[in-house]
Amino acid sequence: MKFTIQRDLFVQSIQDVMKAVSTRTTIPILTGIKLIASEEGITLTGSDSDISIESFIPVEEDGKVLVEVQETGGVVLQAKFFSEIVKKLPGTDIEMEITQGFQTVIRSGSAEFNLNGLDPREYPHLPQIAEEHVFKMPADLLRALIRQTVFAVSTSETRPILTGVNWQISDSQLTCVATDSHRLAMRTAPIEESLSEEYNVVIPGKSLTELSKIVDDTTDPVDIVITENQILFKTKHILFFSRLLEGNYPDTSRLIPSESKTTMSIKTKEFLQAIDRASLLAREGRNNVVKLATEVNNSVEVSSDSPEIGKVVEHIQTSNMEGEELRISFSAKYMMDALKAVEGTEITIQFTGAMRPFILRPLDDESILQLILPVRTY
Amino acid sequence: MKFTIQRDLFVQSIQDVMKAVSTRTTIPILTGIKLIASEEGITLTGSDSDISIESFIPVEEDGKVLVEVQETGGVVLQAKFFSEIVKKLPGTDIEMEITQGFQTVIRSGSAEFNLNGLDPREYPHLPQIAEEHVFKMPADLLRALIRQTVFAVSTSETRPILTGVNWQISDSQLTCVATDSHRLAMRTAPIEESLSEEYNVVIPGKSLTELSKIVDDTTDPVDIVITENQILFKTKHILFFSRLLEGNYPDTSRLIPSESKTTMSIKTKEFLQAIDRASLLAREGRNNVVKLATEVNNSVEVSSDSPEIGKVVEHIQTSNMEGEELRISFSAKYMMDALKAVEGTEITIQFTGAMRPFILRPLDDESILQLILPVRTY
Repeated sequence: MKFTIQRDLFVQSIQDVMKAVSTRTTIPILTGIKLIASEEGITLTGSDSDISIESFIPVEEDGKVLVEVQETGGVVLQAKFFSEIVKKLPGTDIEMEITQGFQTVIRSGSAEFNLNGLDPREYPHLPQIAEEHVFKMPADLLRALIRQTVFAVSTSETRPILTGVNWQISDSQLTCVATDSHRLAMRTAPIEESLSEEYNVVIPGKSLTELSKIVDDTTDPVDIVITENQILFKTKHILFFSRLLEGNYPDTSRLIPSESKTTMSIKTKEFLQAIDRASLLAREGRNNVVKLATEVNNSVEVSSDSPEIGKVVEHIQTSNMEGEELRISFSAKYMMDALKAVEGTEITIQFTGAMRPFILRPLDDESILQLILPVRTY
Repeated sequence: MKFTIQRDLFVQSIQDVMKAVSTRTTIPILTGIKLIASEEGITLTGSDSDISIESFIPVEEDGKVLVEVQETGGVVLQAKFFSEIVKKLPGTDIEMEITQGFQTVIRSGSAEFNLNGLDPREYPHLPQIAEEHVFKMPADLLRALIRQTVFAVSTSETRPILTGVNWQISDSQLTCVATDSHRLAMRTAPIEESLSEEYNVVIPGKSLTELSKIVDDTTDPVDIVITENQILFKTKHILFFSRLLEGNYPDTSRLIPSESKTTMSIKTKEFLQAIDRASLLAREGRNNVVKLATEVNNSVEVSSDSPEIGKVVEHIQTSNMEGEELRISFSAKYMMDALKAVEGTEITIQFTGAMRPFILRPLDDESILQLILPVRTY
């Protein structure tokens, strides 16, 4: 193996595959990055066996030479050192060469590194995925889907299935649901392709979080392939594999109230900031709980108190309020998470009583729903 | 106490005094900030008994009204909550009022906080310092003095005196020295005032670090007053008190070699980056040690190796090299700290043998000196 590559491109590609590399792995070779130089270009692979990322740098793109491959071959290099070294190299180009065994020389400007490498044939193979059932989604929509649901997954391993996001596809619609059994986030999106099969899979929350760091915020299409135990996301030069969680995701549709007793519309940012302020004292009190009460004149009172520190009261004007009077308490954190996930300057909140789950949606947008279970305090 | 104040000014002032507030204090009231409203303005005080900071916001400045004091008085409020609350208040103005006892109401926009306060008379008094022997220094010079020395203080409490920076004033010259007994940083600066007395004090490194965060990077003068066990730094609206360390600082002047056997001049940034790269592998090896060897053609070789990971070699051109051949090893961290502290694009390094301390200075500048003890490896 011997090639010369542009430093900036190489750094980006290494950063991308690094997102799959874990230092806590039971398979030592997975602490490394696999590099393969072929006549077409350079392929980098990182994996923690749950997530695998492959990044490809072609020899040439848009008429520009990105890599010069003098000799094909491959090696596995310690990810941590390799990535730090490449970032700090002085030149704009980097030359990589395997000398003997898997000893790898990295040259750039005045610097020459000599790293102990491993045989790439010892590196686990990536899942083989038949690309029969592919659907496409713009990258920015994929990022939004993830951002608006993944925060609500459970962080506890007591019900492992809840650490993932449930993706259901049927009738050309994708529905993403995440819940930790105290709150739930749901987002739907249309699928353009008419898929013959229906899908119901659970993707680990961590995989989606890492994926959204790699996918650019553009309208470029991402190809998505779902198999029995793997999902693959393909962008122009990156393959992102994740295993799927085993087990059945609970049916959450019955949790979502279909009627409402108290409905209000409120400015998202103003409400979020008020909850944030109330949460300053709530954090010291019991479990970060803030209170909300309807008032006359279409306003609501947000309050919180901590006997040791003090209390806070705030009155916020709603643009519309209908239905019964209400006094309800909820986690400030869940409310802030939900408000940050909801797009739009104004939201509608529908309550069905002080002890029943309530839902938030952007005004006039049915594709996003956030559900929160209240806390008994009043 | 009742006053209205501009939020941004108040936030800045609170941030400044917060630098002295510690959550780990044996005196509970010191977890608070003392607020005193007088007819002249608002005084805020924070202290951890080692460092005390007082910030003053006048009623009026440059013809602009900053504070409206309706009623004088004072209170001590929990620093952590108070600072977070003020930062997150919605309005551009803040109204503060003591209602009964030391209950304090904070109003801004739609928000109203009610905090439990304490009696300001229970707050410890700041040191009383007679301002007889004042000298002045531009704020940016003070920051440079601190930046170039404080990193070299000892972090170990085995010799507490070495956790401070030694300031000596005599013959209208200030000399600042810090050492952890493995390396030493020294910086001198002229003092304009002719002080009748000589001073030799040791200022805790932590105090200087906090001070440099508060002092602006301007040429505005800072008044400095030294007493037997306190030092006071005065800017326009801030008083910064620090206790001094007790004990005698060791005489370090004999450590600094007066002759040189190998001298070289080298570009600071290029050398720093090469050491940084060598340190990537050195960190894994024994104690972050890199090697330097003189070569023919006025160049030096910087190298490092870690049996498990690999090795790195780099050749750097010096602009001038005189004297004996040399092979020497030293801590990459100490060298990088020293190179970052030295100003100027080019430095001179003077060696007196592989096992003797060596010194770095900016080219043609005697006011800065960095000394490093080598490590035995060759």
